[in-house]
Amino acid sequence: MPQQSALEYIRHGQTPFFRLPMADLAAKGPSAYAGADVVLLGVPYDSGTTYQPGARLGPYHLRRTSALVESFHPGHKLDVFERLRALDGGNVVSPPFNAGQARELVQVEVATVLEAGAIPFLAGGDHSITLPALRAIAAHHGPVAVVHVDAHFDTSGPEVWGEPHHHGTPIRHALTEGHVKRGHLFQIGMRGGWKDSDERALSDSHDARIYPMDVVDVGGVGPLAREIRDRVGDGPVYLTVDIDGIDPAFAPGTGTPVPGGLTSREALRLVRELAGVNLCGMDLVEVCPALDHADITCHLGAALLFEGLALAALGSRK
Amino acid sequence: MPQQSALEYIRHGQTPFFRLPMADLAAKGPSAYAGADVVLLGVPYDSGTTYQPGARLGPYHLRRTSALVESFHPGHKLDVFERLRALDGGNVVSPPFNAGQARELVQVEVATVLEAGAIPFLAGGDHSITLPALRAIAAHHGPVAVVHVDAHFDTSGPEVWGEPHHHGTPIRHALTEGHVKRGHLFQIGMRGGWKDSDERALSDSHDARIYPMDVVDVGGVGPLAREIRDRVGDGPVYLTVDIDGIDPAFAPGTGTPVPGGLTSREALRLVRELAGVNLCGMDLVEVCPALDHADITCHLGAALLFEGLALAALGSRK
Amino acid sequence: MPQQSALEYIRHGQTPFFRLPMADLAAKGPSAYAGADVVLLGVPYDSGTTYQPGARLGPYHLRRTSALVESFHPGHKLDVFERLRALDGGNVVSPPFNAGQARELVQVEVATVLEAGAIPFLAGGDHSITLPALRAIAAHHGPVAVVHVDAHFDTSGPEVWGEPHHHGTPIRHALTEGHVKRGHLFQIGMRGGWKDSDERALSDSHDARIYPMDVVDVGGVGPLAREIRDRVGDGPVYLTVDIDGIDPAFAPGTGTPVPGGLTSREALRLVRELAGVNLCGMDLVEVCPALDHADITCHLGAALLFEGLALAALGSRK
Amino acid sequence: MPQQSALEYIRHGQTPFFRLPMADLAAKGPSAYAGADVVLLGVPYDSGTTYQPGARLGPYHLRRTSALVESFHPGHKLDVFERLRALDGGNVVSPPFNAGQARELVQVEVATVLEAGAIPFLAGGDHSITLPALRAIAAHHGPVAVVHVDAHFDTSGPEVWGEPHHHGTPIRHALTEGHVKRGHLFQIGMRGGWKDSDERALSDSHDARIYPMDVVDVGGVGPLAREIRDRVGDGPVYLTVDIDGIDPAFAPGTGTPVPGGLTSREALRLVRELAGVNLCGMDLVEVCPALDHADITCHLGAALLFEGLALAALGSRK
Amino acid sequence: MPQQSALEYIRHGQTPFFRLPMADLAAKGPSAYAGADVVLLGVPYDSGTTYQPGARLGPYHLRRTSALVESFHPGHKLDVFERLRALDGGNVVSPPFNAGQARELVQVEVATVLEAGAIPFLAGGDHSITLPALRAIAAHHGPVAVVHVDAHFDTSGPEVWGEPHHHGTPIRHALTEGHVKRGHLFQIGMRGGWKDSDERALSDSHDARIYPMDVVDVGGVGPLAREIRDRVGDGPVYLTVDIDGIDPAFAPGTGTPVPGGLTSREALRLVRELAGVNLCGMDLVEVCPALDHADITCHLGAALLFEGLALAALGSRK
Amino acid sequence: MPQQSALEYIRHGQTPFFRLPMADLAAKGPSAYAGADVVLLGVPYDSGTTYQPGARLGPYHLRRTSALVESFHPGHKLDVFERLRALDGGNVVSPPFNAGQARELVQVEVATVLEAGAIPFLAGGDHSITLPALRAIAAHHGPVAVVHVDAHFDTSGPEVWGEPHHHGTPIRHALTEGHVKRGHLFQIGMRGGWKDSDERALSDSHDARIYPMDVVDVGGVGPLAREIRDRVGDGPVYLTVDIDGIDPAFAPGTGTPVPGGLTSREALRLVRELAGVNLCGMDLVEVCPALDHADITCHLGAALLFEGLALAALGSRK
Repeated sequence: MPQQSALEYIRHGQTPFFRLPMADLAAKGPSAYAGADVVLLGVPYDSGTTYQPGARLGPYHLRRTSALVESFHPGHKLDVFERLRALDGGNVVSPPFNAGQARELVQVEVATVLEAGAIPFLAGGDHSITLPALRAIAAHHGPVAVVHVDAHFDTSGPEVWGEPHHHGTPIRHALTEGHVKRGHLFQIGMRGGWKDSDERALSDSHDARIYPMDVVDVGGVGPLAREIRDRVGDGPVYLTVDIDGIDPAFAPGTGTPVPGGLTSREALRLVRELAGVNLCGMDLVEVCPALDHADITCHLGAALLFEGLALAALGSRK
Repeated sequence: MPQQSALEYIRHGQTPFFRLPMADLAAKGPSAYAGADVVLLGVPYDSGTTYQPGARLGPYHLRRTSALVESFHPGHKLDVFERLRALDGGNVVSPPFNAGQARELVQVEVATVLEAGAIPFLAGGDHSITLPALRAIAAHHGPVAVVHVDAHFDTSGPEVWGEPHHHGTPIRHALTEGHVKRGHLFQIGMRGGWKDSDERALSDSHDARIYPMDVVDVGGVGPLAREIRDRVGDGPVYLTVDIDGIDPAFAPGTGTPVPGGLTSREALRLVRELAGVNLCGMDLVEVCPALDHADITCHLGAALLFEGLALAALGSRK
Repeated sequence: MPQQSALEYIRHGQTPFFRLPMADLAAKGPSAYAGADVVLLGVPYDSGTTYQPGARLGPYHLRRTSALVESFHPGHKLDVFERLRALDGGNVVSPPFNAGQARELVQVEVATVLEAGAIPFLAGGDHSITLPALRAIAAHHGPVAVVHVDAHFDTSGPEVWGEPHHHGTPIRHALTEGHVKRGHLFQIGMRGGWKDSDERALSDSHDARIYPMDVVDVGGVGPLAREIRDRVGDGPVYLTVDIDGIDPAFAPGTGTPVPGGLTSREALRLVRELAGVNLCGMDLVEVCPALDHADITCHLGAALLFEGLALAALGSRK
Repeated sequence: MPQQSALEYIRHGQTPFFRLPMADLAAKGPSAYAGADVVLLGVPYDSGTTYQPGARLGPYHLRRTSALVESFHPGHKLDVFERLRALDGGNVVSPPFNAGQARELVQVEVATVLEAGAIPFLAGGDHSITLPALRAIAAHHGPVAVVHVDAHFDTSGPEVWGEPHHHGTPIRHALTEGHVKRGHLFQIGMRGGWKDSDERALSDSHDARIYPMDVVDVGGVGPLAREIRDRVGDGPVYLTVDIDGIDPAFAPGTGTPVPGGLTSREALRLVRELAGVNLCGMDLVEVCPALDHADITCHLGAALLFEGLALAALGSRK
Repeated sequence: MPQQSALEYIRHGQTPFFRLPMADLAAKGPSAYAGADVVLLGVPYDSGTTYQPGARLGPYHLRRTSALVESFHPGHKLDVFERLRALDGGNVVSPPFNAGQARELVQVEVATVLEAGAIPFLAGGDHSITLPALRAIAAHHGPVAVVHVDAHFDTSGPEVWGEPHHHGTPIRHALTEGHVKRGHLFQIGMRGGWKDSDERALSDSHDARIYPMDVVDVGGVGPLAREIRDRVGDGPVYLTVDIDGIDPAFAPGTGTPVPGGLTSREALRLVRELAGVNLCGMDLVEVCPALDHADITCHLGAALLFEGLALAALGSRK
Repeated sequence: MPQQSALEYIRHGQTPFFRLPMADLAAKGPSAYAGADVVLLGVPYDSGTTYQPGARLGPYHLRRTSALVESFHPGHKLDVFERLRALDGGNVVSPPFNAGQARELVQVEVATVLEAGAIPFLAGGDHSITLPALRAIAAHHGPVAVVHVDAHFDTSGPEVWGEPHHHGTPIRHALTEGHVKRGHLFQIGMRGGWKDSDERALSDSHDARIYPMDVVDVGGVGPLAREIRDRVGDGPVYLTVDIDGIDPAFAPGTGTPVPGGLTSREALRLVRELAGVNLCGMDLVEVCPALDHADITCHLGAALLFEGLALAALGSRK
């Protein structure tokens, strides 16, 4: 399903993800996404933010900047949008005032995409949207492998903010609710000080594979991508990328920046080298346009989504 | 034709002007705009810029920020989009490399809107797009009154840049080509140094009414709005607003800023007080998003377009 | 209670409001504020925001920029902090995840300040914090006069976002809950399009005095300040200033900017000309540092708080 | 002495003030400025700054933005650079480490300009450069009238910083050293809190005419310009404009912003309405490019210098 | 030919490239550059831009920031500007309205530099200026080796924009017009999606050596610099650096950013390791100051030009 | 001595370094720091800056952003603030007008910290503050090893600015005054052009170990950290980090940026790998908030200070 050409795009003046067709939003349920291999959903929700909010406006600017991405992936040697029937499914409408409802709505919409036989891609919004996505994914696929790029473990408990659900907790709930296959959580990019020595205890207790920046710094992302591919085999893999996993130099537009992260090249290569895994979903979260400069974070976010779409396209070839 | 509600807008994730319906761009010619009272066109073209370019990206950001504008105009006590069947007509596709073709395309599209019985509204783009708009307007209506808000006269000749057409020349050509009714050019906001004493000579020779900032500063915009209304009577009036007519404090996002301009309130009031004129078209040009801060220029541009739409709505009541 | 001198302030490296002493936060309840005439509270809460969030960081930057404000008010000819025993009461701790709890905490802390015999000043945070402040105020004083500077009426109902409480609703609840003395709500600065013709209906039904920008533009703020003073007499007056009441040129750092607002001088003069009223509290809300430039919004916010403090100092003279 | 044309300017790629010829800097002493009516000097010195420094880079950006200013002044109906032999005299070299030497160098260079029979114009740099300029002026002309636009009185004593000379003190020394004609100091734009009630005592003791913002707000700048003209008669007038006299909305690029200042139009009009005075020098100080946005402060600074140059040109006509 | 010292530079207040002497622009033809080894030309032209324009202002800001670069190159152990008689040749005057004329003017000026026996260095401006530079180079030297750093291949045809010449096409024309020695085009830094699988077909058909980011990421720039040196031998080499070849983190100020590019160190090292090649010209293009932050892109652009100048100085030693 | 929890921190609204307790600033002399292992001092002084000033505001923003750093260091597996009794000692009050006095005050305060038995950490301010710190250090410990991260050697003489003391000279004086143990100066990160071939002569004459970026680029920071550790043994080591040692992409907020520097990861790793050295003091200088974006430079500065604190904590374990 080809992208609009540059001139078509300019003519329409609208900014669907990657110049893709819009889904038929007037249709109800899975039929809105009929025939799609992939549906891209924006989730303009950031009420799970603990420090600087603003990621709710991410989907608008990720759509706008994704227009610059062209379809043919030279590394994989395939035309992603020719191979893939990909649609912009609009946004999940998540008013900022009801976190429980927001989670419910994301879960329902992701389930709808899955029911339509398509792979869900989410552009956040803050990281709290990953939990409902994984709930829907696991309801559909059973427990899955999760590749998690982030500066933080996101396994916080309610002790800090007196609240069990926020953008620092999705992996905790995904683990404890059983949506992640044991030993198949891969956490990449963690760094900075921890609250205490238990920061990775929950991950460890679920036998997670953890690649903090110290490890990446020495060995690069190639070895760990191989480890992931070897370990996950043909099982479904969900990829969740918190843009703060990348260094603030490359991704200043995010609410909880931590120095010393992945370079843009490492992040892009990491996703690219997952080629061959059975991707069952992806999200790209925590892009905060108000803190961005010259759209560089948004361009990187769009590029990371494109690498994920290429993985999906590779899978659809099989 | 009501705007999308906030939730509908969020759901769709697209950014049509003022949350309005899109025209049927697949249709050919006037039928694309069938039934419309007003068609809003983006013109992402800025190759007529002499100093800092970037206004080509204006339409995208004006669309995005216009989503915040609500429909009911409390001054005129009318619901603008209920009264008016207004459509987003997409952009005029103007590749940046052929100025003559760009003018031709704008003229054709504006003529198409007029042929469909609708009033054209253009969001630039640079000020050179006003000439082809006026060519189409005059071909349809004959010579019209032109209300021109700007820091500059825009009557430059080819002596500076060796080129007869750029963003400093549309009024020259509109006058010399006869698109403006004699004595019905109103120029408001001019200021700063002139190249020489002849800067307003061409305007004067066409008996223009000129209200430089010195005049506005003393008397405000009320009296001049009255003069315009009195003078134009029922004749068709075209309104062209160069955002640099407004002071850089209120509109930093423009390529040729001149200190000492209109305040946002004066500019908005000026348009509002033209209530009752027979508006035949409007453009809002020279918004350069790369130089904006916190979208304040874009929000002002959207508000000025809304005031123009309210004039059109008032007219459609008759 | 004098400010720290510049050198003392530099020595300490901390940024209390206006270089004032901190309250004894280790003390419990009203004793923390014993002897104070005024207590300044930060409220770093913005989960009531509907568009661009970020005002939660307002208190930190308002404190930092308020250090530039000197104590002697030349208009009133009095040394504000010499007259007034003013303390920085720290922040109300409002985690972003529980709106009801946040309202409760603000109400309790404001009540504590009142119980200590001091006047509460709040630096937001978003406008939803005004409702709990008024609840505490009205519980203490009975219904009060409210002077409300804003671009919006803030009387929205739950129909837009499916939620009765957010930053667009505090005045609705304050009216319906009876915290505002009938005929003593003064709303200043409203502008832009309305959702429908009923936008001011609730205010009108409570006999509010409304001064939209159209009115201010013609007559300035002097007459309306006089009207307010005349009408409120000796009764307690609460002043709530949404920084978006001021034009985005002067206050770009806010989440819901609307062009055409008050100038900085009008806003400062308005507060200054309320001299003589019996101020019972004030808040300054919706300053969003991430959208500010060169701290100009924060400096203006600090200046507005200082004008309010001067009103309190004038009152304490009596 | 005409400006370079736009094309000449582009060809040279250099940025002299207002596209003017450079003085012959290889010449020694007054001969460098032989034949000039006006010499513009940059003073890239800001070590007198008490809060945010950076004005040392002002001259570079004021030169760059002044290229947009055209020569013919429509208000005065004269071609400024045709009338005036104006030169860019380069910068006064003021390393940032020796305040006394910097003052000495400025004084010597201004004296050199005066000796050459030209009027000195200074582009700062911080306000401490005004003292040596006035020393040279007064040595040449005797005590002069001083028109001083600023948010501050600049008459601080050594009690705050333990230092008698910084950017908050030039007017103190100019008064006490006798460079200002008694009763001929005009201070315009003061506002904000004062350290204590004595802030204007020194000015008052020298019978200064003070127009704080409260006064300007009511009456505008017209009456005070008339008062100044009437009072100064044919005597030499020095104009010193601290850009922070203008409101931060119009001039964010300055180190000590104070809300509530002059608008750009008031500031420009004020200088314009001094037409007829015998201008003996001017400075424009405290433009801090690092805090500017989209060059709006620099453009305003250049426009204010141009208004001053027009005063000089009017004088040279006589 | 030494740079001005810091104090000389400050004294003059002008901003020639690298504090170098200006050429005698009043002279006609090659005599303007008599005796020069290198002439640096600014080309303030960006009408070949397809996305975000603004590179026309590059030369002004590259000149300003190049003032910080000192003369002695510690890697090569030589004093670049002592060895090299380098001049600032001003700008090629390229009004933005006539692409054909702009190309003609660049070609003529580069030919003039070559005729004077000097090596041309160009600071753009957009990438379309490379074609006329190469036309002049090839006319002088015959086909040359071209080292091309860029995110894009710049071999687009007219199918996208309906125009054969823009900033995405210079390499296409250079190849098809025969200005590049067969097998001596080196393209470094390409990345992101392609329009289709043919993106590098033209380059391949001319036997280009292509080092996309995937290759650089694995092996670094050392090996490819060696390959280039080995292959080009003593033949003339033209170096064209599109700043978007570098990652947006290091070079945000450019109009078509693509994540995942060269680091600043790789780019600088690449040029440095070309030591020994016979450099016949260089350009540095696509620096867009309006999108830059804190001048970091401009500083990098100046540093890259300095590395190129060092190559020229090494060559002049022989 | 634990950090405040997030909620405690929010409650207080103040911003001590790393949420640490404040020293008892009312106490005189060493007793202010009684019992502390480490005292963090801000030094808001930047009058030693030669190019863009503004680092004087560094301490305020470093304090604010350091609040995000958590206490447990996962690399060293220790809780830094549990191990270390660390205090915020406020700022050294350094009015900007007297460089000699500023140096004296810094030296006295650092000596006081040492006398109290604590390790001094300084957050600048410009690099000229390092000299007085080293004077106090050497007076206490005798000559020490100095690890110096910087883009520049900082051994300039008085020939450029006519002044022996500024931010480009602290290492010169530290060497010539004998505060550095012979052969124990380690300089890391130098790059860019030199004034002449003697740039490193002074360092070499003191047998300094120099690791310019060329060396780091090839071998990384691991080997040089090992060399440092081996060489310094148990002797006291002072660490001075000029943030411009890091590449402008990671640290744009600095006054003299030089492209091609350390990455954030290299800088953090370098400090981390000094584990085991006997740290006797540290400074982090040249952070200029006005030139920063989204606080990324400040966050990096805080992270570097935290790595230094971890070194101190490791030492305190012994």
